Amino acid sequence: MQKLKVSIIGATGYTGKELVKILMNHPKVELVYLTSFTYTGKNIDEVFPEFLNKLDKKLTNLDLELISQNSDLVFTALPHTVSMEVVPELLKKKVKVIDLSADYRLKNSTVYKEWYKKEHNQVSKVLLPEAVYGLPEIYLEKIKGALLVANPGCYPTSIILGIAPLLKHHFVEPEGIIIDSKSGASGAGRKLSLGLHFSECNENFKAYKIVKHNHIPEVEQELSSIYFEGENDKQKQQVTEMKVCFTPHLIPINRGILSTCYLSLKGSKKEEEVLEIYQKFYQRAPFVRIFEPPNLPEMKFSVGTNYCDIGFSIDERMGKIKIISVIDNLLKGAAGQAVQNMNIMSGFPETCGLV
Amino acid sequence: MQKLKVSIIGATGYTGKELVKILMNHPKVELVYLTSFTYTGKNIDEVFPEFLNKLDKKLTNLDLELISQNSDLVFTALPHTVSMEVVPELLKKKVKVIDLSADYRLKNSTVYKEWYKKEHNQVSKVLLPEAVYGLPEIYLEKIKGALLVANPGCYPTSIILGIAPLLKHHFVEPEGIIIDSKSGASGAGRKLSLGLHFSECNENFKAYKIVKHNHIPEVEQELSSIYFEGENDKQKQQVTEMKVCFTPHLIPINRGILSTCYLSLKGSKKEEEVLEIYQKFYQRAPFVRIFEPPNLPEMKFSVGTNYCDIGFSIDERMGKIKIISVIDNLLKGAAGQAVQNMNIMSGFPETCGLV
Amino acid sequence: MQKLKVSIIGATGYTGKELVKILMNHPKVELVYLTSFTYTGKNIDEVFPEFLNKLDKKLTNLDLELISQNSDLVFTALPHTVSMEVVPELLKKKVKVIDLSADYRLKNSTVYKEWYKKEHNQVSKVLLPEAVYGLPEIYLEKIKGALLVANPGCYPTSIILGIAPLLKHHFVEPEGIIIDSKSGASGAGRKLSLGLHFSECNENFKAYKIVKHNHIPEVEQELSSIYFEGENDKQKQQVTEMKVCFTPHLIPINRGILSTCYLSLKGSKKEEEVLEIYQKFYQRAPFVRIFEPPNLPEMKFSVGTNYCDIGFSIDERMGKIKIISVIDNLLKGAAGQAVQNMNIMSGFPETCGLV
Amino acid sequence: MQKLKVSIIGATGYTGKELVKILMNHPKVELVYLTSFTYTGKNIDEVFPEFLNKLDKKLTNLDLELISQNSDLVFTALPHTVSMEVVPELLKKKVKVIDLSADYRLKNSTVYKEWYKKEHNQVSKVLLPEAVYGLPEIYLEKIKGALLVANPGCYPTSIILGIAPLLKHHFVEPEGIIIDSKSGASGAGRKLSLGLHFSECNENFKAYKIVKHNHIPEVEQELSSIYFEGENDKQKQQVTEMKVCFTPHLIPINRGILSTCYLSLKGSKKEEEVLEIYQKFYQRAPFVRIFEPPNLPEMKFSVGTNYCDIGFSIDERMGKIKIISVIDNLLKGAAGQAVQNMNIMSGFPETCGLV
Repeated sequence: MQKLKVSIIGATGYTGKELVKILMNHPKVELVYLTSFTYTGKNIDEVFPEFLNKLDKKLTNLDLELISQNSDLVFTALPHTVSMEVVPELLKKKVKVIDLSADYRLKNSTVYKEWYKKEHNQVSKVLLPEAVYGLPEIYLEKIKGALLVANPGCYPTSIILGIAPLLKHHFVEPEGIIIDSKSGASGAGRKLSLGLHFSECNENFKAYKIVKHNHIPEVEQELSSIYFEGENDKQKQQVTEMKVCFTPHLIPINRGILSTCYLSLKGSKKEEEVLEIYQKFYQRAPFVRIFEPPNLPEMKFSVGTNYCDIGFSIDERMGKIKIISVIDNLLKGAAGQAVQNMNIMSGFPETCGLV
Repeated sequence: MQKLKVSIIGATGYTGKELVKILMNHPKVELVYLTSFTYTGKNIDEVFPEFLNKLDKKLTNLDLELISQNSDLVFTALPHTVSMEVVPELLKKKVKVIDLSADYRLKNSTVYKEWYKKEHNQVSKVLLPEAVYGLPEIYLEKIKGALLVANPGCYPTSIILGIAPLLKHHFVEPEGIIIDSKSGASGAGRKLSLGLHFSECNENFKAYKIVKHNHIPEVEQELSSIYFEGENDKQKQQVTEMKVCFTPHLIPINRGILSTCYLSLKGSKKEEEVLEIYQKFYQRAPFVRIFEPPNLPEMKFSVGTNYCDIGFSIDERMGKIKIISVIDNLLKGAAGQAVQNMNIMSGFPETCGLV
Repeated sequence: MQKLKVSIIGATGYTGKELVKILMNHPKVELVYLTSFTYTGKNIDEVFPEFLNKLDKKLTNLDLELISQNSDLVFTALPHTVSMEVVPELLKKKVKVIDLSADYRLKNSTVYKEWYKKEHNQVSKVLLPEAVYGLPEIYLEKIKGALLVANPGCYPTSIILGIAPLLKHHFVEPEGIIIDSKSGASGAGRKLSLGLHFSECNENFKAYKIVKHNHIPEVEQELSSIYFEGENDKQKQQVTEMKVCFTPHLIPINRGILSTCYLSLKGSKKEEEVLEIYQKFYQRAPFVRIFEPPNLPEMKFSVGTNYCDIGFSIDERMGKIKIISVIDNLLKGAAGQAVQNMNIMSGFPETCGLV
Repeated sequence: MQKLKVSIIGATGYTGKELVKILMNHPKVELVYLTSFTYTGKNIDEVFPEFLNKLDKKLTNLDLELISQNSDLVFTALPHTVSMEVVPELLKKKVKVIDLSADYRLKNSTVYKEWYKKEHNQVSKVLLPEAVYGLPEIYLEKIKGALLVANPGCYPTSIILGIAPLLKHHFVEPEGIIIDSKSGASGAGRKLSLGLHFSECNENFKAYKIVKHNHIPEVEQELSSIYFEGENDKQKQQVTEMKVCFTPHLIPINRGILSTCYLSLKGSKKEEEVLEIYQKFYQRAPFVRIFEPPNLPEMKFSVGTNYCDIGFSIDERMGKIKIISVIDNLLKGAAGQAVQNMNIMSGFPETCGLV
């Protein structure tokens, strides 16, 4: 059987590197081009010595012509606002794209502009409604036929998967949702920054971007869509009804996101009822694990895997439910989910090449 | 001038050790007895080699007679439910006591029994209303004359100081308070436990005691007292009106607690108004620092000091206010605060011997 | 094709757990029994929740009869001095054994007794010369036909592989070898110990067992054998000619061993000469990577893999050569190497199931 | 009593910051100017919020005129090769200088040029023999009268103090000395560097500058001086007889250096003999602690203090002695030792302001 020819644009960021690691061992994939702005011309094992004897591949510059001609599918692992300069070119050449930036996640270009301070051009605006939000547990069918998948953000993946069943079944109020998330340091990427130096992060812990983190509109768009599911897609582009109060924190560990979500229950609910809707919602999702109370997921259980682990606890005194949702930010929160999307788009088993 | 003669019961737990470190350099204190159940008879530098050449002192057994005769003030750093066996004996001998356990923090012995699964005997029940909750920023005057101070828990210190001004000024609703706290590993003490092993904690992060942490009643008692301040002490013993939704988490760092608190604002408030009530509330508190937005405290700023650092952010979209409150769990959250109380009880400058 | 039926005795230590992780995904293996003294009767995902939805297997007690009847090969991951109570029973029943303890590594039972304070019984003494030291890069042919493989210790693996080519080619003096090793905390196992608590290890670094670490005789036996390779096996049992000066240190990381070895060069050697003998020595070794100067291996390059990464630097001013040798202590230093041995004993590709 | 007026040039590097922390609480010092190239004009608590409410001081630019006029003593905490542009100006104005760079540590300017790739100008060359190497345990008398103290490097401090008694008493051979050092990340300073990012350092461990670290000549100069103590200073400038084989490693902790030193004993020595020469050598040194075998120092015992902790073990099988020497790289390895020097130069108690 012929392998899927895959290229990665931006292969030397943390996400790009993780994509390479997964795809080099994927039984149905042939890696074609790995591009890098900073390291063009070097072999990948010069940049990341862990690839020594494992992958012998040169990093190339961004030649879209060449890449399009020789690739069936391309992962774009570029910074926000840069991706939109590249993606339309690839699509024009009939190459499928999985974009790991935020550029095609928001249906509403005005909201994008407000949070990311850049306007889509006309071509990209047209692409927005066609791009599929790549959360397979919610949009499996749409992803199957997608040409452009907007791979979700890391925080949104943990949050949306964590509370989707509660919202869908209207077990909770749509107001007053509090989300307290904690992420390892790799979430901040490989750019130089004093604040990310070992001596600054280690033995420290802090909240950051407490006023406005640009993962908020993505979360609100998707939660609203789940809660108000009667609405059609058209409407979804116009309105984002639900709001969340979100605080990200930085933990001195390499990988992982744990989101603690606080929602108000509509009336009294039993543990078994909650457990049931979660198990049913995710019964065909190979990468979601539900922990039965009083068990709770911990960071280390999902780090290194593509799992989203979810646990919960009902606070009867307060009428609240707490949900703990954990992912590896570089896998289910980025590269792993992207490969899961690739598998679905290509008719491969959903778990192929993933652990 | 004669020095205050001080003994520490339970000197080889993390809190006891921290007390020794502070008090051995305190200019107005003479350390008399350091007791240890596990290490009786050893020199303290055999147990903690960092004391080598600094403190030459033998660890003794718990001889209450001897301790009472030769001490003006005793710190009891014993486990919850054990402290109450010792404290009344000391008070009987006219020795002042600062108790670092939870045994005298709750005014209502029924609530204590419910959360700590042990009943106070008659003597201790009588002591409950006389014990002063040792949070100097709230109870300065009472501490001055106290014979028995119940030193606050670490989480409660961070939480109560973090939100007291908002509650006192009724800037926020008393309902629906969410508190998401994160603590370093020393908070769990020195008892053997597989879950506290390096290989288990390191590169991990988790929520724990999510259903019921026994610091909750202490927080609720004090927050209620601040919010409903018209009530007299008698009433305070009977009712605990406010409730909080609290989740503690374990961070892989040695020391520090950061609490992220979410409260609903009563109407719209400006940053300056909030800043003003905080600055006013703490104007005479030498160990509270208020960070002006957009600055926020981080764990490393207060770890190693007796400060409680507080910052905040108003989420106008949600009508919420987020407060970040940080302390060193072993200092302001335990030993440092205990020495601050000792200073106040003894007429020393409040900051003496502390940084 | 029928799969190899494999059992693990001692499946809930760190090494046993790692064996389970590898073997559950090994394409040619069927896991039969996983035994655990502490957790008999529990499902493995109750002990290690990371196995949830991945492996559904009960932990059993140590029934040697049942295990022998239904297994082709057994891994014994028991403490030193305990393994020797079990291994002969298994061999008697014609089951192949890979023993991860030190019990069959030393050819000389007197040396074993001196360092491990226990004497082999007669049956085990007879087994000593038949046991093959499971370092595939040195003993490939013997391992192929072995019934009992003594899987090497973690420090010895890093040290022996690190300097074997220099000794074999007599590039260095056999005297005055200094080995300064550093290990992550998982090397100490899962037994309860205050010294391994997070608050004790974290932000600390120390040497330990500086006088006498029981990996020394194993290293000396094998280095002598390589240097004096003319000698036959018989002699090897009697003499251990070479000596090393060894100091292990504990690093606050989860996994990995880095050994810095200092040897005296016999005359002047060029980098290219050294590089050549290393590359030749390991040309058919799939799990050894040689780093060309000035590149050096780092802990993170091999952690998570079965590689031993080796780099070196010649100190001409001192007439010394420094070798840096790195492994993952739980993989190439234990479970990974054990599976590599299993592959070789069973005629599978040497790298099967390993990364 | 009038306080000593002190300025710090380069107050916002890790060493400068540490100097500020110590000196702001020093009872005999008044801080005059704190200069910073990067943060001129800002208040120090804007750069380091931990100074909030503790030190209210503006960072100034490098105005040598103003600084000289108003300071009795200046600490220069500048990068190597930059310090020599500033120090002579200060001395000309009769200000005492403690230089924390390497610029005046080496007596031989040719050796300096070889290792630091820059030549001293004529003025600085003249200063070299006058500069006193600021290791109080060796040069106490000279420091008392010094105008310019060259504060030792961090690695050299740990190494020289660790083995000086053995060399002085000729207990060991001067050849073949192996030094394997491990340092926390703050040793690398605050300059931007991808290699120092948390995600790169954390859970990693590596050797670096394995071929040539520029602390080597400093170590060799001082060890030679101690071993060949009959020689006069003149000769010391010309010859560096002893050589060491040195390998530094980076540990993922914030602070601390542990050096493991391997030396060949001249004949057999008993533990008590070794202990005796160490205790005698350091009997008047308030910041050196000798650990009696089998006790050994650990990183955490000295981190946060100005102590150098030393332990040892005799390896009789090899005829070697191992010395473990530990310091806090920012205190005894930099700022703490600088203040110790200041105390000595100013007639203050040697331990004043230090812990």
